[in-house]
Amino acid sequence: MQKLPREIVGYGPVRSYEASSGGKAGIRSKVLANLDAAIAACGLKDGDTVSFHHHLRNGDAVLNLVMVALARRGLKNLQVAASSIFPVHAPLVAHMCSGTVDRLSTSFISGPVGEAISSGLLGKPVVLTSHGGRARALDEGALKIDVAFVAAPAADALGNISGRMGPNACGTLGYPLTDVDVAERVVAVTDRLVPFPVAAIDIPQNKVDFVVAVDRIGDQGGIASGTTQPSDDPVSLAIGESAAAVIAASGLLREGFSFQTGAGSVSLRTAEAVGREMATSGIRGSFCAGGITGQHVKMLQSGLFETLMDVQCFDLEAVASYQRDVRHQAMSAAAYAGPHVGGAVVDRVDAVVLGAAEVDHAFNVNVTTKADGVIIGGSGGHADAAAGSRLTLVTTRLTAAGFAKIVPDVGHVTTPGTTVDVLVTDAGIAVNPKRADLADRLKQAGLPVVRIETLADMAAERATRKRPPRAAGRIVAVSEYRDGSVIDVVRQIERDEEPQQRTPA
Amino acid sequence: MQKLPREIVGYGPVRSYEASSGGKAGIRSKVLANLDAAIAACGLKDGDTVSFHHHLRNGDAVLNLVMVALARRGLKNLQVAASSIFPVHAPLVAHMCSGTVDRLSTSFISGPVGEAISSGLLGKPVVLTSHGGRARALDEGALKIDVAFVAAPAADALGNISGRMGPNACGTLGYPLTDVDVAERVVAVTDRLVPFPVAAIDIPQNKVDFVVAVDRIGDQGGIASGTTQPSDDPVSLAIGESAAAVIAASGLLREGFSFQTGAGSVSLRTAEAVGREMATSGIRGSFCAGGITGQHVKMLQSGLFETLMDVQCFDLEAVASYQRDVRHQAMSAAAYAGPHVGGAVVDRVDAVVLGAAEVDHAFNVNVTTKADGVIIGGSGGHADAAAGSRLTLVTTRLTAAGFAKIVPDVGHVTTPGTTVDVLVTDAGIAVNPKRADLADRLKQAGLPVVRIETLADMAAERATRKRPPRAAGRIVAVSEYRDGSVIDVVRQIERDEEPQQRTPA
Repeated sequence: MQKLPREIVGYGPVRSYEASSGGKAGIRSKVLANLDAAIAACGLKDGDTVSFHHHLRNGDAVLNLVMVALARRGLKNLQVAASSIFPVHAPLVAHMCSGTVDRLSTSFISGPVGEAISSGLLGKPVVLTSHGGRARALDEGALKIDVAFVAAPAADALGNISGRMGPNACGTLGYPLTDVDVAERVVAVTDRLVPFPVAAIDIPQNKVDFVVAVDRIGDQGGIASGTTQPSDDPVSLAIGESAAAVIAASGLLREGFSFQTGAGSVSLRTAEAVGREMATSGIRGSFCAGGITGQHVKMLQSGLFETLMDVQCFDLEAVASYQRDVRHQAMSAAAYAGPHVGGAVVDRVDAVVLGAAEVDHAFNVNVTTKADGVIIGGSGGHADAAAGSRLTLVTTRLTAAGFAKIVPDVGHVTTPGTTVDVLVTDAGIAVNPKRADLADRLKQAGLPVVRIETLADMAAERATRKRPPRAAGRIVAVSEYRDGSVIDVVRQIERDEEPQQRTPA
Repeated sequence: MQKLPREIVGYGPVRSYEASSGGKAGIRSKVLANLDAAIAACGLKDGDTVSFHHHLRNGDAVLNLVMVALARRGLKNLQVAASSIFPVHAPLVAHMCSGTVDRLSTSFISGPVGEAISSGLLGKPVVLTSHGGRARALDEGALKIDVAFVAAPAADALGNISGRMGPNACGTLGYPLTDVDVAERVVAVTDRLVPFPVAAIDIPQNKVDFVVAVDRIGDQGGIASGTTQPSDDPVSLAIGESAAAVIAASGLLREGFSFQTGAGSVSLRTAEAVGREMATSGIRGSFCAGGITGQHVKMLQSGLFETLMDVQCFDLEAVASYQRDVRHQAMSAAAYAGPHVGGAVVDRVDAVVLGAAEVDHAFNVNVTTKADGVIIGGSGGHADAAAGSRLTLVTTRLTAAGFAKIVPDVGHVTTPGTTVDVLVTDAGIAVNPKRADLADRLKQAGLPVVRIETLADMAAERATRKRPPRAAGRIVAVSEYRDGSVIDVVRQIERDEEPQQRTPA
């Protein structure tokens, strides 16, 4: 080889290629023996942040497996940055008690972890974000991930991950898609290690550092859990029909219509009714977005929509559709809901149907706390979808468990009323006063439009229990709006009774 | 809403959500009127770096369109970071003359730009990288992109890009996939602006800042150009048959075989022969990688391989396959060839067939300069594939244009001989001495194995012209190996004759 100068004008100092260091790159594998080896290889240390995603929902086993390994290694003061926490993650409480975990950042908490947080388990307040706000915090560096652990339904030895194969196929991987772009290290945890290359890559190998095979990443059966359980009750059906009537009357249900619903029974009923109306009127919509269910898949297959924009499959019909239909597209949390991307998918949704634990006179919505102030959820995509959609419908019955759900002031503001257009209940429809145009349309369509205060009064009459005043204790959780500002806080609950000992099942 | 404290213990200072700033996010569009508006919106200034990709190869119009707009704005001293430069980019010479561009970083240059560079047009040396080295430089920040201009066969108003639709569909978008991850700003330049959302997203909206519609992003017919033109000459056929025989004798042609070829006629002939052997022997391979041609598509469709890993479609058959077949997968330049990703796709290739302008006694390969020292190419993926593959075959005829192609010392080292296993020519096969095992296998199979010096002697005998000595002028280009070290330099050519005036066609 030629002798090279030490420096080249206009280029700079020269580091010469050394023939001796050349030769084949060699075949390497990222596969490590177990989670302990991965934790060591990542150099995780006290105070670091580990991230998880919730595509297996209440069937996820990866967060618990990793936490056991982190505790075994003796790590302390870790931050858990999980896109959502479910009842299956109850063991996290013990890791908080032991000091392995001292901070939690997440978009949704249901089950024992929420109860423990509300009782003051953690010294530092939990940070509750929206899905879009979490993506923004990650992309902007406000939330830094040291190691992202990705529950991988299938992976190969070079780190390619698929959500479409394996015993626990979960479909799209919208949440880790955002994490792997920013995490210092990424570990794929899989129960289906396949020969290279995975034939349907959802996260590519260059974003993944290590691969660990475990017996089970969880239980696919847990995907359709929590908010995705359908129901046949007549009240849900009635509210769904009303919500569909509101959409039809709004003027938005026309060629190119775009639609988002959650996976609760009212959402599913609304989607059914909207689909019926589209079929009857010969309307071809553009896309459905968000978490995707079999109901959306049916609408795609019957030609009512052209494509599905799927951040997370909410049931196994959706998983099967994503496996076989290219019109069923994955999107990352950032593309779905980020307020920082110059236009997210939620910003192009015509109508979204959202649920509520409570709604107040100002149309503020609480999906974070129960009537007693205990954390039972969080925004997820709620605040994002409300802010983005041209028509944001919040649906709820007047009361639940004896408590009024339409109230003068919500116990916690998750989604500001300025982003909510209409409230649909089993006792009438209330339109946000700033949407007088919408109220006119609904009245012309003969829909039962009433003032929200009237609904609140009716709810108060039907209620058999009175919500306690907001807790006044220490702040145990901070709700960040999607832009990172603080929209509300959750305070510690002072319980009357002693906490009960749980008997292991 | 609740009054919030100014600071929360364990959280920090509180920036309160302002209800007045809330409300709908509103529908925004990233679409700008023209390239001038995009350049202004990106804040491009003198000395910045603009990137381009070469999926339209010699049919690309975007680089030229953007350069005209940059020149019109009066910008100076820009760096062009293009994944490859083709003859169609001849106008870049004028932009270099005028000072609009003073630096070029690329993996391949053919045509007038290479000639101009070799004649000393630029004051600063061009940086020639491999495709994997370029991805490494981008991911590590050694090469910073201010604005990536993405030639987008289809795009929507929120910036989703598809390579699968539109009059100039080019298939996969492996090179810009790496650029958009690191560029400060990304502009999609499209001639098919479609309603949101693009139904087959290759680059998602959250990676794209602006969208500009132009009349034509180029000419799809230019994709199958340059290195991708087939040929029916008997010498190519014979070398292809020999190369296939080497692969068969190597022991690697077995269940799970993985394969890469270029798109030259010898590569295509080799692929044909390998496919025939696989079909005869009932061997089912794993994947083909790299730039993908109709030949690879045929092998996929006939069940010889399970999947294609495609960084760039080399012809329209490949584009059509990517449009309809999920087994035909896109990969980024980083995943394809990056030396920094802990194992790239090239590192899992069993056998790769590469071309050469010259090969020397040490098996070093030159694909960068012609016999007269003028730049006519560059590594592209050559050095990456050679380093990764278990069996690297370099194929060439003994002479071309009267010059010997097997020589004592190449005029430029693009790919080090330490990564080359075997040289296949029309006059015999030479095995790298460090692969004695391979030489034994080939001899046992009855293949005509000779010393490389013998091939060089035969080439010298057949040659009718003598290569001039290496130019001794100023350094006009620096060849970086994939790890960023400098493997060789190109020096200015002192031409005897005056440059001829070109008459515009």
